[in-house]
Amino acid sequence: MAEQTRAKLCKYIEDNQSKFVDTLREAVEIPSVSCWADTRKDCVRMVDWTEGKLKALGFETEIRQQANHEVEGKTMQLPPILLATLGKDPSKKTLLIYGHLDVQPAKTSDGWDYEPFKLTEDKGNLYGRGSTDDKGPVLGWVHAVEAFQKSGVDIPVNIKAVFECMEECGSEGLEELLISLKDTFLSDIDAVTISDNYWLGTQTPCLTYGLRGLSYFMVEVECGTKDLHSGVFGGAVHEALPDLIWLLNQLVDVKGTILIPGILDDVLKLTDAESKLYDEIDFDLGEFKKDCGIRGLTSPTCKKTTLMSRWRNPALSVHGIEGAFSDPGAKTVIPRKVIGKFSIRLVPNQHPDKIGKIVKEYLEKKWAERGSPNKLIVSMGHGGKPWVADHAHPNYVAAATATEQVYGVKPILTREGGSIPITITFQEVTGKNVMLLPMGQSDDGAHSQNEKISKRNYIEGTKLFVSYLLELGAQLK
Amino acid sequence: MAEQTRAKLCKYIEDNQSKFVDTLREAVEIPSVSCWADTRKDCVRMVDWTEGKLKALGFETEIRQQANHEVEGKTMQLPPILLATLGKDPSKKTLLIYGHLDVQPAKTSDGWDYEPFKLTEDKGNLYGRGSTDDKGPVLGWVHAVEAFQKSGVDIPVNIKAVFECMEECGSEGLEELLISLKDTFLSDIDAVTISDNYWLGTQTPCLTYGLRGLSYFMVEVECGTKDLHSGVFGGAVHEALPDLIWLLNQLVDVKGTILIPGILDDVLKLTDAESKLYDEIDFDLGEFKKDCGIRGLTSPTCKKTTLMSRWRNPALSVHGIEGAFSDPGAKTVIPRKVIGKFSIRLVPNQHPDKIGKIVKEYLEKKWAERGSPNKLIVSMGHGGKPWVADHAHPNYVAAATATEQVYGVKPILTREGGSIPITITFQEVTGKNVMLLPMGQSDDGAHSQNEKISKRNYIEGTKLFVSYLLELGAQLK
Repeated sequence: MAEQTRAKLCKYIEDNQSKFVDTLREAVEIPSVSCWADTRKDCVRMVDWTEGKLKALGFETEIRQQANHEVEGKTMQLPPILLATLGKDPSKKTLLIYGHLDVQPAKTSDGWDYEPFKLTEDKGNLYGRGSTDDKGPVLGWVHAVEAFQKSGVDIPVNIKAVFECMEECGSEGLEELLISLKDTFLSDIDAVTISDNYWLGTQTPCLTYGLRGLSYFMVEVECGTKDLHSGVFGGAVHEALPDLIWLLNQLVDVKGTILIPGILDDVLKLTDAESKLYDEIDFDLGEFKKDCGIRGLTSPTCKKTTLMSRWRNPALSVHGIEGAFSDPGAKTVIPRKVIGKFSIRLVPNQHPDKIGKIVKEYLEKKWAERGSPNKLIVSMGHGGKPWVADHAHPNYVAAATATEQVYGVKPILTREGGSIPITITFQEVTGKNVMLLPMGQSDDGAHSQNEKISKRNYIEGTKLFVSYLLELGAQLK
Repeated sequence: MAEQTRAKLCKYIEDNQSKFVDTLREAVEIPSVSCWADTRKDCVRMVDWTEGKLKALGFETEIRQQANHEVEGKTMQLPPILLATLGKDPSKKTLLIYGHLDVQPAKTSDGWDYEPFKLTEDKGNLYGRGSTDDKGPVLGWVHAVEAFQKSGVDIPVNIKAVFECMEECGSEGLEELLISLKDTFLSDIDAVTISDNYWLGTQTPCLTYGLRGLSYFMVEVECGTKDLHSGVFGGAVHEALPDLIWLLNQLVDVKGTILIPGILDDVLKLTDAESKLYDEIDFDLGEFKKDCGIRGLTSPTCKKTTLMSRWRNPALSVHGIEGAFSDPGAKTVIPRKVIGKFSIRLVPNQHPDKIGKIVKEYLEKKWAERGSPNKLIVSMGHGGKPWVADHAHPNYVAAATATEQVYGVKPILTREGGSIPITITFQEVTGKNVMLLPMGQSDDGAHSQNEKISKRNYIEGTKLFVSYLLELGAQLK
């Protein structure tokens, strides 16, 4: 009987593939880049568009307007947050779903082979900014609910949803809202699921029980009040950019090892049980390198070290420099003020506040050693705590069963190197188990050129969501 | 009699100030940025506009179309070069004037207080991109000729002019053209004057007899085929940007001393005579720092060392990085390919080819030490040889006399740190004395935000040009 119900739901999804792709097309065409001032209106439009979809399915929705903040030097209102509720049956458990409607910046000139804000279907993939991060998965949930309703099948859990539009900018405003909803909207949650990450590879589905946190840093060095001609002034002026380069060069060694003393003090020791988990994972280093187009790994031959480097060890990446000459061509300028940007991915039990303090003190100490007459300002941008969950919980069991039903294989238990800082807030505010249930694959290129989701993952992923909802009703009883 | 003639010419200039400012306004409003693809049409327009002005004064003009080249990845035709001739009297000597009609890039968002491509008169200054570099000086020559003609005074020399529109992009195409004109257009030149540099300070006029050369370098490091999410890949991937930062950190020490072995081998030793020249120059370090808005000098207390650092010693400046994240805000990207850009200012007898070879070998040797799996490409962009001239030549004597007549003081004999690579080509092709006769002041902000020329320098500078032309006729006899 249960299997017949599932088959009916999956058939509906199978039959409506084209329609579901068209809905994703509409979503991708809204360029809801949250960190650009010019596209703030599109973020608002994206939230409205999603609210319309949910209302059509009978969700009760609520738009939470947010406070003002600064984007590119302009004061703007944060995009609203969308809350939604479907079903208030006291005999059912309640699942909370989270997703985000904003996307990373993208320009064709970054090196895209497709228009970033059009959906292009090519060789089984759906290319476009947000296709996999995170518009595809959000629509997966929407279409899962539609499948239940159009097939006349009762959803065995009540559903609540929180969809925000600032995730790519540190989820500004969301944490405060969730805390304020602790005793109202979020008081009756029994489990939380987030689909905003990726499979470990391209073949085997995963359930994810851990995430790294993040501390983002800005290092500003100023040498003057205006940019100067390097011919007229070069040699006489103490330049800002070599100072910044010197400072950024104190962060990591050639292997990526972080050089900041004390930074690893709070990292949890590896237990035998955790160690064994990595041994069991089938992960091909050569394929990983090839899929991601990487020239070199920091641990070129060890699968286990590579997995741990991505999931359970801190990592420091340098992102770029603002204020220096960055266009193509040649310009002979001495930039007056340059801002280096780097971030550290955090793992249990590192805390962003403590890491921020250690990094700031380290850079300021190094700066004193440098003996430069220029001005330094180290500041920490958005941060997020790392997170791990109990992967033996019924929430995970339901998803594992659903995965076997849809894909015919047991899911791999993974952690993720990326940060979804709000995950830990959901855990803290609801006090319940949180699970990450990825829809896309490792090579989807979130945050990169040519972001895509495969049509297979988009459609089978929607089947996975209906199967999980069915199973969750039974497991949470 | 000569002084009466000069007074008549200067009165014409005095009476026509507003008109001359309006002509500069027209020129600034043409955004002839040579290194942007989008403004190439404005470069062509600027050359046409200038040709019109010259024709109206009776110059015979010739437009030299140029070959194709690449700008921002697009194949485009180089802007044309304008040749002009006024007077072919075999009893007169012939002066060659050079200037450029293109400008550095400028955007209001770079931090301008004025519209860069409008001329704004404010507190005695004329603000706008190109006002001092080099449209103001070019128009100074045009208005000097107009003054002679409208005052009915014979110009005692024949005048030839070469005006190009690619100076800010390495004068591409000009050197080849000048060499090809050696036995025709340039065969009968007796002296060369270029007005494309600045006074040492803001008070005392200068004649300039030396320039530094330039070697521009691009250092490209590639770690993969696409940008990657620093959460998903950070720690496992050997990143390109820290590699580049490490390499750029091998270039100079905290004092700006170049760390590349052999780079100073060909630098001419300081003679007693040259040393004495610096001693004689009145140059206030405090005022220099204040005018230029600089926080720190590499030689904070020594005037002489500072002058030599700017004029007669090589200097290395780091300009920026292409391909890394450079926008405001936060982005958690691992850039796939980054290109560091720096340049070295060269002095006699350094040669760009040899310096290019030394730098490339040094960086490649360091790269081997680094032991990175990433890919390095070091390439040299445009280069230019350094230049010094004989400042006892009649060309300089004429200008010194004219300076005393207009400004009432002897000019300072200076060198310049900037590069006008074509200067040495003029010297080589004509075999004659070349002089730099600056119109603007040290704080004009060429290549910087709020570029300006003071109205005083623009108008008195035009008087200087007529006085120099009068005097040159006598001196070159």
